[in-house]
Amino acid sequence: MTRVGVVGLGAMGGPMAGHALSAGLTVCVHNRTREREEPFAARGATRAASPAEAAIGADIVLTCVSDVPDLREVVLGEGGIIETIQAGAVLVDCSTVSPTIEREIDAALRRRGASLLDCPVSGGPEGAQRGTLTVFVGGEESDVAKARPLLEAIGGTIAHMGPVGAGQAAKAVNQIFLAGAYAGLGEALVFAQKAGLPMERLIEALQGGAADSWVIRNRSSNIVRGAFEPGFRLWMHLKDIRIALTEAETLGVPMPVTALFAELEQRCVEAGYGNDDVSAYARVPRGEV
Amino acid sequence: MTRVGVVGLGAMGGPMAGHALSAGLTVCVHNRTREREEPFAARGATRAASPAEAAIGADIVLTCVSDVPDLREVVLGEGGIIETIQAGAVLVDCSTVSPTIEREIDAALRRRGASLLDCPVSGGPEGAQRGTLTVFVGGEESDVAKARPLLEAIGGTIAHMGPVGAGQAAKAVNQIFLAGAYAGLGEALVFAQKAGLPMERLIEALQGGAADSWVIRNRSSNIVRGAFEPGFRLWMHLKDIRIALTEAETLGVPMPVTALFAELEQRCVEAGYGNDDVSAYARVPRGEV
Repeated sequence: MTRVGVVGLGAMGGPMAGHALSAGLTVCVHNRTREREEPFAARGATRAASPAEAAIGADIVLTCVSDVPDLREVVLGEGGIIETIQAGAVLVDCSTVSPTIEREIDAALRRRGASLLDCPVSGGPEGAQRGTLTVFVGGEESDVAKARPLLEAIGGTIAHMGPVGAGQAAKAVNQIFLAGAYAGLGEALVFAQKAGLPMERLIEALQGGAADSWVIRNRSSNIVRGAFEPGFRLWMHLKDIRIALTEAETLGVPMPVTALFAELEQRCVEAGYGNDDVSAYARVPRGEV
Repeated sequence: MTRVGVVGLGAMGGPMAGHALSAGLTVCVHNRTREREEPFAARGATRAASPAEAAIGADIVLTCVSDVPDLREVVLGEGGIIETIQAGAVLVDCSTVSPTIEREIDAALRRRGASLLDCPVSGGPEGAQRGTLTVFVGGEESDVAKARPLLEAIGGTIAHMGPVGAGQAAKAVNQIFLAGAYAGLGEALVFAQKAGLPMERLIEALQGGAADSWVIRNRSSNIVRGAFEPGFRLWMHLKDIRIALTEAETLGVPMPVTALFAELEQRCVEAGYGNDDVSAYARVPRGEV
């Protein structure tokens, strides 16, 4: 029986733990705010008082936290996973962080006979709930095989991208593309509104041609209504894009449009729109930022 | 029997004239380089020595030229359509130009009892050949009805967007969106290449999520191969974007990402890549421009 320790029960990690339970895996959960563990305990999970406790005896440990300091703390900090993870176990990290920190964590785990798969996901909280996430995986093939029962429970597409760090690089590719797509969407649809075009008919026509895209199909209505409930929070996309920009500098890839989009997202955050959906970038062409 | 005069038999106008013939319309063609008329004459079209001659007796006159000076010349210049177009006839202009020039031409036509539909299209030469273009239409409902036999012959989607100029505004929306999409595509995939990711598997995975889009599905391979045969020529997209930027200024819509993309496209043109597909923007993150 595959035993899974889950650390972090937020908008992403929570549904993932639920899918692990539904798939019949033996699950132990830990969350900094402990009450969040309760609904999972009610479904048969055991509760752990610390990340270290969640990792005891686990074949797979799943982490899904929102930034590098949190990740360092739950893995390498006091009461962290590193203290108890067993030899041969795999840490599946679904956080979106830099390839560099993942390599550092993998090196630390290897000193204990364990190892890492960096598994950032795309698809947002809806995808997490539906179990249809795309999981970009970096790490060794043998570790992917070990983690597969969990990966298939949480994701619709499991895309192995190469060695440790390659999952994060692939996720960065996704976020870079989306920077352009959301910029295009926001500027195009605000232009359309100001030009007085019939939005519904226009959006339908755009979908018939080269502008067809997930963002047009799923995020146009935010801009038309002027309401930007997430979806995927703008500040989190900005965080991801900053990781990508740092990595791009290392790789020697100039990304002028992505860099500009990050600046504009920063202005949106400063104006108080960080917790809105990324499509709230439309406030820039609207002159509201 | 609907009589159509076609002026301009280029990569877009040529296939359109062919579809008009296939639909059983009575077609008269004119092209500045007269030899281009020959294959259409072989299929039953009559030939005209000037735009004015092509418009004689026509119910619908179709123009598809590449810029404002050409459009002015074939409509308002010496030997232009304005000299002979009959009262009640409709000029269907499939060029991509500004809403302003279309309104000016409509006003001139109205003094002769004729009128204009601005009908810029999306879908490129492939779409023109297949007859699957999206046609963005601006003008009066009664004129759309008159022009319908031709519009349905050339397009897959006929999207009436409002009064004269609204077709051009909608096309601008399409091109603004594509500025962002091609920027995102180029920067994302060059980053991916430099990061050593498995491109085919990555692109497939991206299509399963929020990055799914026509540009990823249809233009990724250009970037992977480093070959950018058009497709849609970069200099023509730049021309369209400049129209959009001018219009955006009038409307009071700041479009910082679109403006930056235009600058970067200008650099590509200066470096000799104007006749490549728009996806040749990937030369910028590659550091080739």
